[in-house]
Amino acid sequence: MVINIGNFFNSKNRDSKMGDFQDLEHLDGLSISSTSANLYGDRRDDLVLFYFRDGANYASVYTQSKIVSENIKWNLNIKSKKIKCLMVNTRNANALTGKNGYKGLKILADTLSDQLTEKQKVDEEKPEKIKPTDILFGCTGTIGENFPTDKIKFCIPELIEKIKYTQNKYIWVKAAMGIMTTDLKPKLAMEECSIGNKLVKIYGIAKGSGMIYPNMATTLGYIFTDADISSKILKQLLKKNINTTFNAVSCDGDTSTNDMVSIFATGKAKNSEVKNINDNRLIEFNKSLHAVLLNLSKRIAADGEGASKFITINTLNCKTENDAKKISFSIANSPLVKTAIAGEDPNWGRIIMAIGKADVNINANKLSLRIGPYKILEKGQILNSYKEKEVAEYMKEEKIDIFVDLNMGRKNFAAYTMDLTKKYIEINSDYRT
Amino acid sequence: MVINIGNFFNSKNRDSKMGDFQDLEHLDGLSISSTSANLYGDRRDDLVLFYFRDGANYASVYTQSKIVSENIKWNLNIKSKKIKCLMVNTRNANALTGKNGYKGLKILADTLSDQLTEKQKVDEEKPEKIKPTDILFGCTGTIGENFPTDKIKFCIPELIEKIKYTQNKYIWVKAAMGIMTTDLKPKLAMEECSIGNKLVKIYGIAKGSGMIYPNMATTLGYIFTDADISSKILKQLLKKNINTTFNAVSCDGDTSTNDMVSIFATGKAKNSEVKNINDNRLIEFNKSLHAVLLNLSKRIAADGEGASKFITINTLNCKTENDAKKISFSIANSPLVKTAIAGEDPNWGRIIMAIGKADVNINANKLSLRIGPYKILEKGQILNSYKEKEVAEYMKEEKIDIFVDLNMGRKNFAAYTMDLTKKYIEINSDYRT
Repeated sequence: MVINIGNFFNSKNRDSKMGDFQDLEHLDGLSISSTSANLYGDRRDDLVLFYFRDGANYASVYTQSKIVSENIKWNLNIKSKKIKCLMVNTRNANALTGKNGYKGLKILADTLSDQLTEKQKVDEEKPEKIKPTDILFGCTGTIGENFPTDKIKFCIPELIEKIKYTQNKYIWVKAAMGIMTTDLKPKLAMEECSIGNKLVKIYGIAKGSGMIYPNMATTLGYIFTDADISSKILKQLLKKNINTTFNAVSCDGDTSTNDMVSIFATGKAKNSEVKNINDNRLIEFNKSLHAVLLNLSKRIAADGEGASKFITINTLNCKTENDAKKISFSIANSPLVKTAIAGEDPNWGRIIMAIGKADVNINANKLSLRIGPYKILEKGQILNSYKEKEVAEYMKEEKIDIFVDLNMGRKNFAAYTMDLTKKYIEINSDYRT
Repeated sequence: MVINIGNFFNSKNRDSKMGDFQDLEHLDGLSISSTSANLYGDRRDDLVLFYFRDGANYASVYTQSKIVSENIKWNLNIKSKKIKCLMVNTRNANALTGKNGYKGLKILADTLSDQLTEKQKVDEEKPEKIKPTDILFGCTGTIGENFPTDKIKFCIPELIEKIKYTQNKYIWVKAAMGIMTTDLKPKLAMEECSIGNKLVKIYGIAKGSGMIYPNMATTLGYIFTDADISSKILKQLLKKNINTTFNAVSCDGDTSTNDMVSIFATGKAKNSEVKNINDNRLIEFNKSLHAVLLNLSKRIAADGEGASKFITINTLNCKTENDAKKISFSIANSPLVKTAIAGEDPNWGRIIMAIGKADVNINANKLSLRIGPYKILEKGQILNSYKEKEVAEYMKEEKIDIFVDLNMGRKNFAAYTMDLTKKYIEINSDYRT
């Protein structure tokens, strides 16, 4: 089942068969090529190369897991001022693969740097030497299996040969599909905005599905912009916007060893220099970046493994944002709430249970609860107007909104998740077979 | 599917069709009667009365949820030195039922106290007046539905009429069944031990199934002993033993508004007075109480909703017990681990993922992992001896043991859980229909 999340995520709200990424086009300074290293054994794309011919400023946030994959270790060691390429593979997480996993990345980085340097000599007026340390890696898939260095290395010439200095929406969709694991839908988002008098693009792709929980949230998210913004400011913008977007998504409460969200700025829009994050010219960019990140985050929740419903949990009027977050996630991660929603059962007692176990001080006499437009509890009292039948009817919809109001303060937090279905069990009981 | 956990829980290790509660018999000072208030609409038992004709010392631990049911509020208000009765109903949690829920308990307590006082006049040489404040309540079931005071009140005469001052194993099993919700099996356990030169009994019943997570763990657990031990020492003993038993169980990471574990001591064994918890004469009792609590806890995990496997997660050699507990529960609560086990897939990478997300500082180079007898990781390295096929074979068993060794200290913690199956989703998607 694929939930139709419609186009409400896209601020342009356009409609087309391509969904809301119909407008994705070339982003200057970036080339994307995809191929299959046949890691799944069925020839689907599993390898994507993002190449920045003139380099890109960049920033990343990584998994909070205490055990991280080899590619995250690699990326954390990269200190280059500009990045020349990002290579992403799926099927194999390169986690718990020890020295061989890391060595594999070194081999791939050496190969890429040699061959991309040759490519520069052919294509560029002022060719640069591309170093292995100018390269980042994204990996996702099974943990603890040998990293398929040779199979991937074998595809590098093809990936480089495919480099074209122009993209269209099909290349974007192909890339988004090439980083998927059990995702059913490619996840793309885009916004355009101005910095000063220059129009800039913000495009993003992501993959999610299982193992999605803060901090941070999704497995992989990559944002690309042609804006000219320093790595330092990119980092600040990313950190600022991640809390209410990627870190607001939970599919099953699990966190991967490989989570990674990055932003790359090619600078080709040639906007005037932005000196710091408080610069007024960044207000629009900041808003648009948030929209792209939120768009991708919601897509990840809506395409969570086995999802039949997309659920938004709004916790309102708490003393602190952290309180609101704890309650929203306590509900979002509760198997009992998620199975009730899967069963279209307005069993709101389970929501109360999840609020109670969130370890937040609440006053039950102030607690209000609403499902969709239907008020159930108002300041601790079950409303006479509450009709279970009406809410049961609402539960049949694909998008479910839950509103918890603590009436104790002014801080809110929205979390995004999906229901827990038999399909989730099916996918995860035999993921590897 | 019912997991056969065998008799390994019972220290006597006997075998019979009745399982390990074949030896349950009369416990002096206690009478049990059960009936159906037809709360489920199918005439199954849903109401159980535990009556202590001469009162009982007692202690309880309750849910850590910030929203508690009306019966927990009632119990917390009880200050009587001795308890005269405990009434337990299933189907309705009496949570989020507001003033009417609490008032309902008052009505039931008044009725019970009147009728039990009459009973005393008939049966006892020195009849006592039984006060409403000598009565405790246990409730379990759906949250937020009107408490069926009248239906329950209507059954009180029958419950009192059924009081016999003797029990056998069938009455115990009937009681254990009368407090079940979606449990498939009644949960009973027993031990005998000495205090000084007196033999004492420790019998326990419990119900679990969904919504099982510390702190504390199960929905309802009631321990009865004929030992003479003060309420103060009972409280200390219960607190001391709950952490590694009921608080070590997780079925789905959810916590109820109604969790309650109590111990009642009738004193009929007439052992010599025990002055404090460090008294040497309590060593055996303490051990036996722990055995009963652990026995019941394991039964709860093994009968977790939809369970097809009983899983023990041992985390060893941590710096603190809390670290070990966090890791054990991170694994026990991970849907990805639990679905892999349901699928009999030795996908140990997910265990690593769950260790990583537990928010405990670990050294990946010291980490060892074993599933059953099969070593997989030794100090961060995948062993050459590891054969996936062997572990896949082991995964077909009903009892799965996981050993995580941090090699960083000397503290351990074992958590008990079950796998996550389609059956869980089935049960919880239409619990109320």
